[in-house]
Amino acid sequence: MDANDTYEQLTRHVRKTKMLGSINALLEWDQQTMMPQTGANYRSEQAKWLAGEIHQRETDPRIGEWLQLLQTSELATDPSSDAGSTIRELFHQYEKKRKIPLDLVQHQAMLHSRGQQVWIKARKENDYASFAPTLKEIFHLKREEAQATSISDCLYDSLLDDYEPGAKTADVRQALEQLRDGLVPLIAVAKENQPRGNATALESPRFPASQQKAFAKIATSLIGFDYERGRLDTAAHPFCTEIGPDDCRITTRYDEQNFSSAFFGCLHEAGHGMYEQGLRAEMYGLPPGRYCSLGIHESQSRLWENLVGRSKGFWTYFLPIAKQHFPGCFEGMSDVDMYWSVNRIRPSLIRVEADEITYNLHIIIRFELEQALLQDELSVADLPAAWNKKYSDYLDITPPNDRDGVLQDIHWSAGLVGYFPTYALGNIFASMLFQTANSELGCQEGNFEKGRYSDLLKWLQNNVYQRGNQLRSDKLMKKITGSVIDHSPLIKHLTHKTQAVYSPIES
Amino acid sequence: MDANDTYEQLTRHVRKTKMLGSINALLEWDQQTMMPQTGANYRSEQAKWLAGEIHQRETDPRIGEWLQLLQTSELATDPSSDAGSTIRELFHQYEKKRKIPLDLVQHQAMLHSRGQQVWIKARKENDYASFAPTLKEIFHLKREEAQATSISDCLYDSLLDDYEPGAKTADVRQALEQLRDGLVPLIAVAKENQPRGNATALESPRFPASQQKAFAKIATSLIGFDYERGRLDTAAHPFCTEIGPDDCRITTRYDEQNFSSAFFGCLHEAGHGMYEQGLRAEMYGLPPGRYCSLGIHESQSRLWENLVGRSKGFWTYFLPIAKQHFPGCFEGMSDVDMYWSVNRIRPSLIRVEADEITYNLHIIIRFELEQALLQDELSVADLPAAWNKKYSDYLDITPPNDRDGVLQDIHWSAGLVGYFPTYALGNIFASMLFQTANSELGCQEGNFEKGRYSDLLKWLQNNVYQRGNQLRSDKLMKKITGSVIDHSPLIKHLTHKTQAVYSPIES
Repeated sequence: MDANDTYEQLTRHVRKTKMLGSINALLEWDQQTMMPQTGANYRSEQAKWLAGEIHQRETDPRIGEWLQLLQTSELATDPSSDAGSTIRELFHQYEKKRKIPLDLVQHQAMLHSRGQQVWIKARKENDYASFAPTLKEIFHLKREEAQATSISDCLYDSLLDDYEPGAKTADVRQALEQLRDGLVPLIAVAKENQPRGNATALESPRFPASQQKAFAKIATSLIGFDYERGRLDTAAHPFCTEIGPDDCRITTRYDEQNFSSAFFGCLHEAGHGMYEQGLRAEMYGLPPGRYCSLGIHESQSRLWENLVGRSKGFWTYFLPIAKQHFPGCFEGMSDVDMYWSVNRIRPSLIRVEADEITYNLHIIIRFELEQALLQDELSVADLPAAWNKKYSDYLDITPPNDRDGVLQDIHWSAGLVGYFPTYALGNIFASMLFQTANSELGCQEGNFEKGRYSDLLKWLQNNVYQRGNQLRSDKLMKKITGSVIDHSPLIKHLTHKTQAVYSPIES
Repeated sequence: MDANDTYEQLTRHVRKTKMLGSINALLEWDQQTMMPQTGANYRSEQAKWLAGEIHQRETDPRIGEWLQLLQTSELATDPSSDAGSTIRELFHQYEKKRKIPLDLVQHQAMLHSRGQQVWIKARKENDYASFAPTLKEIFHLKREEAQATSISDCLYDSLLDDYEPGAKTADVRQALEQLRDGLVPLIAVAKENQPRGNATALESPRFPASQQKAFAKIATSLIGFDYERGRLDTAAHPFCTEIGPDDCRITTRYDEQNFSSAFFGCLHEAGHGMYEQGLRAEMYGLPPGRYCSLGIHESQSRLWENLVGRSKGFWTYFLPIAKQHFPGCFEGMSDVDMYWSVNRIRPSLIRVEADEITYNLHIIIRFELEQALLQDELSVADLPAAWNKKYSDYLDITPPNDRDGVLQDIHWSAGLVGYFPTYALGNIFASMLFQTANSELGCQEGNFEKGRYSDLLKWLQNNVYQRGNQLRSDKLMKKITGSVIDHSPLIKHLTHKTQAVYSPIES
């Protein structure tokens, strides 16, 4: 059989596996947005079966045979071509997956499906103890998984690689430490000075959920999320998922006393969604039609949430519309007032509602804790105390309960260990990309004032989305920005903002 | 291997197939309630794959081997026991399914998935021509399917048997003709007399969808639909589906100028849902834990919609609550006024909104047309004209457009041919069951006045739901009511109602 036929067989196989994955994505979306709680047991059976089918397809020995032939063929010559990147990434995935025993995969699928229901209930009832046995089992199996795949001496590398292929724990640690060192002085400035703006305007019991949803849909549509090919729903933990090349769904949660939570959450998820919607549909299911890494994915959500959504220009355009949707709110506020108000720096409990600066410390806390749990240096029983101590040490704030502490995130309950650092990488990548876009296109702030986001979106589509995973994230960032990972654009951006919000007003 | 082990293997296999079916149910529910239209193509790929997997499992030759051994075992001795009915029904299903070629099954699955999207668009745009090619192909493949399974000389028997196992077209035709002959004089009475009550109160532009939903949830909860194990959503064509033993979902559509449409639709779907929720969960996926037939299923929806929901006692309890939900509506109306108003007889265009009497003529029209289409005696191109002529002949009314004519029902677009007559059987069975329940429990109307529906529900649970498909519908009806199929309770009930609404008021 020649290489082209083999490649055709391989890609047909892989696309079909992706189709099973897309069904699984629907099961998960439904579980988090629609399913009655009582459906959880049977849902976990469904998820277990599908995970088993997917794992069997992913570890089908024919894939190894096909890839062996293809790796020495001309198709693999250019590793950043459609075929070359497909062969490269599928080989990496195959080598990793086939080391994980089927029964472990199935056990994890059931556990993570059930785990999310246990977590939802435990969070609601502020009852960490009811979640602890499940969490313990989750980390136990994650350890087994990491040992089975063991791509280096560092257990955590194996898990991190699932989300940021090729990344190493030591490099990520170094990047996060540099970032932290740049942020600490900014937090000090915020602590020592009074902020400008009007924060209470954004936190009053007068933002009806239905109005929040309507306004968020207007804003996310205008920046470029396509509701003809997607939808917005409510979920305990906001997320974005795709159930096919033309079916991308985002979720949020509404707090009627807080304007920012859902609004910036929606911009965030829409950023993820626009990335998915901008991938090459004809390559759906193959690496060139897939997101590059979770760090790059997060760069898109954070770029639209923070670099666009918290800019002054954005509010020049959107504040009048917001005033229409929330009569009596924002009264007398200008775009500059709004810019100041949505950019306050304040150590807080909840990661997804944190400001742009302290957010990264939330990530560092989770990054450190999950490594300790994985390496059995910290027990699940001691986790809440360890969590609270780190919040006290790093952010000078102590969670009053576990609901707003260790139970706040869904990730661990769903088996997502090694995922958190990609959030901070996303912040770093976002600023690198935004700086390059502004330098190539000219400063975009003027466009934002006019409600024009298409130039930026088009630039991202051409540079990021349409490339999919032809390149890994390090090579992609190098190609677009000239650097692999550089925290200075983020620090520069945040320094500018901190000065704007916290320096004495010049008159 | 002994019979018990074989039975264990068989039931494990069948339960797993059901699990795949439940995933498919979610794909379908999502397509009709949530999915962006653009997701349709990929959804049909997903459905095609799942249908293929299900068909392969259903026609696995091991099932034939297992059943051969089991049919002569002691487990099959009592055909109405759990094991006996399982063996009986699985054999019937297996023998039928294995005659259908896999490529036909997969082709149909894709076609029916896509067909529903084509139908939704065609209905919205009142464009039959855009639906006709798909409909033609659907009937073409249905003919192939019926020829492949051919359980008698009558092609239609093969399709009818999918929904009402064991039923014969000739018997159904006779039952429907007897029913029609009993209804014609009642329609004449209604035509010649003025109805009592206040119909305009139910058809004014003042029933906000959100209030309709809230009121419908109160009523359907109170009669016994369990929202802890289910939900209510909006869909173009109302339906009920179960996605697991503890996850039953009903849907409706709201017309803000019409109170009855969604309200009685919700009672109807809740009736289906209560049947599903009342089945034996431990038998999920096997015949004793499955509904008996679609005729019996429909008897439950119609019983709660019409025999309960359109009774005077029901409105004695619910009218005050309705008045609270719709301020200014129903003003000055008594329960008797409401009883009269919701029981008007008026030939109308839309089946699902038809009164209890003319409804059956809608069914007869579809029953006749789909037989003609299947036997190629009527072409798809001529269908709209044939449809309109029958509405003129039978109901003295002509659809002004195809949207409210031939395009009104989803069934054919989804490949449901042979399904419609079970709606009329359901009406007949409902009255037979309700008459028996009232005779055994005492007249329930007094309970309804007090908002008490649990006695009736419990009776249905014991007599119908908990028996699942241990018996076929003819034997089940005989066991409960003493008759197989008897239209006289329905005619008696409708005669009483017609007299109440249309006779001169005695003073």
